[in-house]
Amino acid sequence: CRRLATGGRTSDDILELCRRRCFLLGEKMTPASVLGGRHSLGPLGAQMKRNLIKEWWDAMVLHREQVLPIDSLCRLPGMSNPSPGPPPKTLSKACLERLQNQSPTQEELEKMADLRQDLLNGALYYYPSCLELLNRKLPFGITEVGRCFHPISDNEDPDTCRVGERTAASLVWFSSAKTCAQWRDYWLRQRLLWWRKFAQVPSRFSSGDHPDEDGMKTSLIQYDFPWGKEPIERLGILDDSALTQMHHGPIAHLHGRDGRKSAIPHVVWMSSDVEGGLLAYLCDALQVMKNAAPRGKEQRRAVLKIHPSLAPVILAVDLGKGPAADLRLVCQGLCTELRGRGIAVWPGYLETLHTPMEQLFTRYDEMGVLFTALVSDVTLESGLLQLRSRDTTIKETVHVSKLSAFLTQHMAAAAKL
Amino acid sequence: CRRLATGGRTSDDILELCRRRCFLLGEKMTPASVLGGRHSLGPLGAQMKRNLIKEWWDAMVLHREQVLPIDSLCRLPGMSNPSPGPPPKTLSKACLERLQNQSPTQEELEKMADLRQDLLNGALYYYPSCLELLNRKLPFGITEVGRCFHPISDNEDPDTCRVGERTAASLVWFSSAKTCAQWRDYWLRQRLLWWRKFAQVPSRFSSGDHPDEDGMKTSLIQYDFPWGKEPIERLGILDDSALTQMHHGPIAHLHGRDGRKSAIPHVVWMSSDVEGGLLAYLCDALQVMKNAAPRGKEQRRAVLKIHPSLAPVILAVDLGKGPAADLRLVCQGLCTELRGRGIAVWPGYLETLHTPMEQLFTRYDEMGVLFTALVSDVTLESGLLQLRSRDTTIKETVHVSKLSAFLTQHMAAAAKL
Repeated sequence: CRRLATGGRTSDDILELCRRRCFLLGEKMTPASVLGGRHSLGPLGAQMKRNLIKEWWDAMVLHREQVLPIDSLCRLPGMSNPSPGPPPKTLSKACLERLQNQSPTQEELEKMADLRQDLLNGALYYYPSCLELLNRKLPFGITEVGRCFHPISDNEDPDTCRVGERTAASLVWFSSAKTCAQWRDYWLRQRLLWWRKFAQVPSRFSSGDHPDEDGMKTSLIQYDFPWGKEPIERLGILDDSALTQMHHGPIAHLHGRDGRKSAIPHVVWMSSDVEGGLLAYLCDALQVMKNAAPRGKEQRRAVLKIHPSLAPVILAVDLGKGPAADLRLVCQGLCTELRGRGIAVWPGYLETLHTPMEQLFTRYDEMGVLFTALVSDVTLESGLLQLRSRDTTIKETVHVSKLSAFLTQHMAAAAKL
Repeated sequence: CRRLATGGRTSDDILELCRRRCFLLGEKMTPASVLGGRHSLGPLGAQMKRNLIKEWWDAMVLHREQVLPIDSLCRLPGMSNPSPGPPPKTLSKACLERLQNQSPTQEELEKMADLRQDLLNGALYYYPSCLELLNRKLPFGITEVGRCFHPISDNEDPDTCRVGERTAASLVWFSSAKTCAQWRDYWLRQRLLWWRKFAQVPSRFSSGDHPDEDGMKTSLIQYDFPWGKEPIERLGILDDSALTQMHHGPIAHLHGRDGRKSAIPHVVWMSSDVEGGLLAYLCDALQVMKNAAPRGKEQRRAVLKIHPSLAPVILAVDLGKGPAADLRLVCQGLCTELRGRGIAVWPGYLETLHTPMEQLFTRYDEMGVLFTALVSDVTLESGLLQLRSRDTTIKETVHVSKLSAFLTQHMAAAAKL
């Protein structure tokens, strides 16, 4: 076996695999249509996205002091998108222009129907309430994960414009002007480490600066897709005008305490594209092996080596040889126990049509299933089952009563690396 | 102490509390504006919503066989809202009419900009892909949690119409025509049990039938709010026309296998209003006590007795008497350990302004914080801290090393009830 170099084909490989195994849904998948947010996620994609958001939440909310989550409306009261012309001096300009190479037209803005394009405004809008809750103490952050919308100009049909959707995971960090640049460096390093944590090839995630026309420095975290580098997260600084422009009237209620000083904070804003990150991890996970078959025929085997913390299915449970009805009962009990421990199980044993074993393994490898348990007549006699690993393709013999502990340990070890 | 009867005031009580403690954000809160989806969620509301969705997901996806999650676009390709006139014969008609007592006008539909009003269409649209993934085996379900939009006619200003937003948690269950009614009864019972599981007063959640004009039977799960009963979940049956109307052309790819028969399935559809459920649990949790004070003054104490599985904060950690700098280090270590076990902690010890103890407890009771740990100079000497319970108001002495196990056990016990 040898691994294929990332060539021109891999871009088709990954999208074809995502379509075949229902990570993504819909017709005519291209890198642009996927990153442009024009596809729904199928069962495996939805589960993997959920795992990715959980990891983000754990790292950014649960394990942090002074980060408050909010859940804001897609259309905030009293806010509408800018009229055509120069958009306000926020990061979304850079984001928008990168997507469009132009400012949105009147028609595009109408189509957007005042839907939010990012999560920055929500955080700025609700800053006073959150500040109050923390007794006005700086620094702190407001975080949100939610659907955002952006206009897409269709190249094939320039007269219609569509709306793309993406899930953004955003942290807006408020700190004193003096410490703002340090915080920016801190967060950029943290975020890059986080992205790399779940990667097979961490070096494909990199950070770089992206100078703006206005001289505003935006940092990008990029992934090296088979078709080139694409940003999956942006990070930038805004001064205190971000808050004063949003909140008119007296500014005393915007002041936060940093030590003994009281001032309007500056802002470090970072925003990830969750579906973009998902596609990055899928590309990162794909390995295509070539086997030299005896008669000179080449066989290609695709495996999605998704990190255990993100994998949509941890264990598939299937039937080996033996009395199907009895074996199904064993499988059912096993699955119930594992689900009780929060382990995602694929109930292959419910299938009534017979599939050859090798075909099953091929399917599960393409689904990124970490382990496959085969329950057979041996299990009925001695309690032993075959456990096949996605990453090593080795089959081990494990006792039914030990399986749950084995999987829990395997996942805990992977999460710690 | 005695508990107040649910009177006319409690409706103001709960909304005032939600505003004061940032469960909900925004101005002019009324039952209608909250249930109509015109408020964002603040830090405590967002965390509690996340917990509620996790419980829903565990019950409906993780612990079930044959339920597939998807994550669909808010605007599906090739779909737009109906033109004014009779809407199609789906449940959303009943939902819409209940909200509006009228069909949406042209202007309202334009405002909606083709945004989805429910999650049914997404599930029907992607049914063929999911069926394929399960080897065409019935019954199975497609589930999704996502933002939906609905037009609101403003009573104060009839010329403007706004868009309300709500998060729906939907399960679309496909089964053979013969078993459909049984499944409907099964799911209605399951859902009612689920809602009651986290309630202080389970009987306030009830189910009832809601006959439609067209003779279509819709079941509702309602909560008895202080201002009257409101539906928080709807459940109904659709026949095979649901799928054939959505997918034109040959119908062979819609056929699923049920035992030896092959047919187009009927549909049981249930959809919860997540924010409505959140408000129901907040109303359910609120207890207002009156203390007869010595000089005849009455004191009112509000406690949010939120179920441990849903509570946004499990433990607040604060400073008692002693050297603040040393105590903060102890607090920090304690919080890190607890967060590592997935326990949500409120870092009260970071506060540099002194707050009297009783005032702290009042604040935490209103936030629904389950326990408060007080770290003091005694802790430095002997490792013992004071642990104050929200529900009993009793202070226990617990050793630092035992706290994490105590909380984990307490939550596991509550989850099992």
